[in-house]
Amino acid sequence: MQTGHGKRLYINEVSTRDGFQMESRFIPTDDKVAFIDRLSDLGYAKIEVTSFTSAKAIPALRDGEAVMQRIARRAGVVYTALVPNARGAERALESRIEEFNIVMSTSETHNLANLKMTREQSFRQLSEVIRLAQSAKVPVNVSLSCVFGCPMEGEVPMDGVLDWIDRFTQLGVQGITLCDTTGMAYPTQVQDICATVLARQPALDFTAHFHNTRSMGLVNTIAAVEAGIIRFDMSLGGIGGCPYAPGATGNVATEDVTHMLACMGYETGLSLEGLIAAAAQLEQLVEHALPAQVSRAGPRLTRHEPPQDFPTIVSRAHERETLEVQP
Amino acid sequence: MQTGHGKRLYINEVSTRDGFQMESRFIPTDDKVAFIDRLSDLGYAKIEVTSFTSAKAIPALRDGEAVMQRIARRAGVVYTALVPNARGAERALESRIEEFNIVMSTSETHNLANLKMTREQSFRQLSEVIRLAQSAKVPVNVSLSCVFGCPMEGEVPMDGVLDWIDRFTQLGVQGITLCDTTGMAYPTQVQDICATVLARQPALDFTAHFHNTRSMGLVNTIAAVEAGIIRFDMSLGGIGGCPYAPGATGNVATEDVTHMLACMGYETGLSLEGLIAAAAQLEQLVEHALPAQVSRAGPRLTRHEPPQDFPTIVSRAHERETLEVQP
Repeated sequence: MQTGHGKRLYINEVSTRDGFQMESRFIPTDDKVAFIDRLSDLGYAKIEVTSFTSAKAIPALRDGEAVMQRIARRAGVVYTALVPNARGAERALESRIEEFNIVMSTSETHNLANLKMTREQSFRQLSEVIRLAQSAKVPVNVSLSCVFGCPMEGEVPMDGVLDWIDRFTQLGVQGITLCDTTGMAYPTQVQDICATVLARQPALDFTAHFHNTRSMGLVNTIAAVEAGIIRFDMSLGGIGGCPYAPGATGNVATEDVTHMLACMGYETGLSLEGLIAAAAQLEQLVEHALPAQVSRAGPRLTRHEPPQDFPTIVSRAHERETLEVQP
Repeated sequence: MQTGHGKRLYINEVSTRDGFQMESRFIPTDDKVAFIDRLSDLGYAKIEVTSFTSAKAIPALRDGEAVMQRIARRAGVVYTALVPNARGAERALESRIEEFNIVMSTSETHNLANLKMTREQSFRQLSEVIRLAQSAKVPVNVSLSCVFGCPMEGEVPMDGVLDWIDRFTQLGVQGITLCDTTGMAYPTQVQDICATVLARQPALDFTAHFHNTRSMGLVNTIAAVEAGIIRFDMSLGGIGGCPYAPGATGNVATEDVTHMLACMGYETGLSLEGLIAAAAQLEQLVEHALPAQVSRAGPRLTRHEPPQDFPTIVSRAHERETLEVQP
């Protein structure tokens, strides 16, 4: 593995969308706004603020407009949101979002199970959303689910993935996110897929989105970095579960990945200290423990005091030394 | 990252020593024996059965002799145990252990805090243990703590680590374990240290021992594999904590690492199915949840059923399709 030598990577924080939508407790709008404002100061390239899905489908994010209106927008941060359909696009444009994130699955079964549509139906619906975004000159990113495997179908053929990427590219989208929706990706596969898509569509901005469901979130991130990916979705505290693996951890944790990347010499622009403090607040907001490790253990060079009786230990050891040396 | 192409890696299971010694509940001797017998069938190269430390120091492992006497030894598995001193060596030899695992720290402060001795005192004491092992023709492995950092001193200079490795090599030990005792290792450092020690002492068997304290256990494992390490300590379920990071996960989990290595084409000889079943039993033995992920989520191609109303979803989608296509 290579040292980063200061190579710049760009982090998209998804906790307030991908994380909050899984929470049973409704996070009050005021708390969401304050939390996002705090995130805006930490050095993210992008924040996925909310979702313009119907309030019925995702009640946790029913306050999308209010949140978008009230957050303080910081220069240099792109404020994106999930937009599922034409109605959502209207709401998103009224809220002046800076990027549309649209979602469909590369697996037919997963798309039907999750979005209640065939992939072709999703593509037609999203084509209309793209047209609306483009008429308002708002960039579009497509998050493709199950790129690294489907919990219901198993392996997802790469040819199909490439075909969806090509079709969205032809519609003029700016970016594609390769989503490991349920934590099925593994490092050599990640490297293979990432290298293939980068070579095939060099003008697109590719993002990788990993879950830590099977403990491979960090190693997959490095595999993607080594393949040339420079944009990553992450979730503070590792918030955001996986419905197919109850009890397993969710999105890869921003503070854990950032800590590793910093150790290896990559530059994310993020303040690790700020992330750890924000993760503590997030844990209070959602009212349960989060799976991230660095927030608990601290950065690797966190100093711990020796045990209280350390001076006694040392003097006893030195006394024994004298006895041992004098025969 | 490279595909494994069937490269053989050798796994040492440390849950019954490094794991059990941290447990507040005493695991009954019968349960220990039954559990180790079960492990013996799973394909491990080595099992660290117990510790011949004083019962006062580690009450959880006070039944070391009984466990060693009663387990069924399977050909091809090396049964090792921790041996701290000459008294422990006598007990270990009476118990016919097949390898001595001796421990000291590369950090003076950590060695004093943990073993109540200076490193030089530890070295003298361990030299005597080595002599006893050698007189009985039992191989010796040295587990060096804090090779990748010390929670009290910070960075541990590589020169010092190399010097301890050289000194033990001169005493004729067979192996050295590079221990990331408190989860401070990161991938580029791992690769650097592993490549250096392998080049310096090519005749020694080096083992890597990682903790997942900062979520880097798996990526560090791959870094070590890429540097040429083929032996690894792991702990089923990720059992075994880190006293300097309360609440953080412990040793890297055998089932999580094995799953990743299998995905990447490495051969560990281990049965993943057997590991997952054994981890479930381990969780019952220790009476608390364990941090490993693959035991919860299953292997990556674990199939999940679509939602119950899937046939309805599909027929509705197809009905809409007909309506949309007929203008």
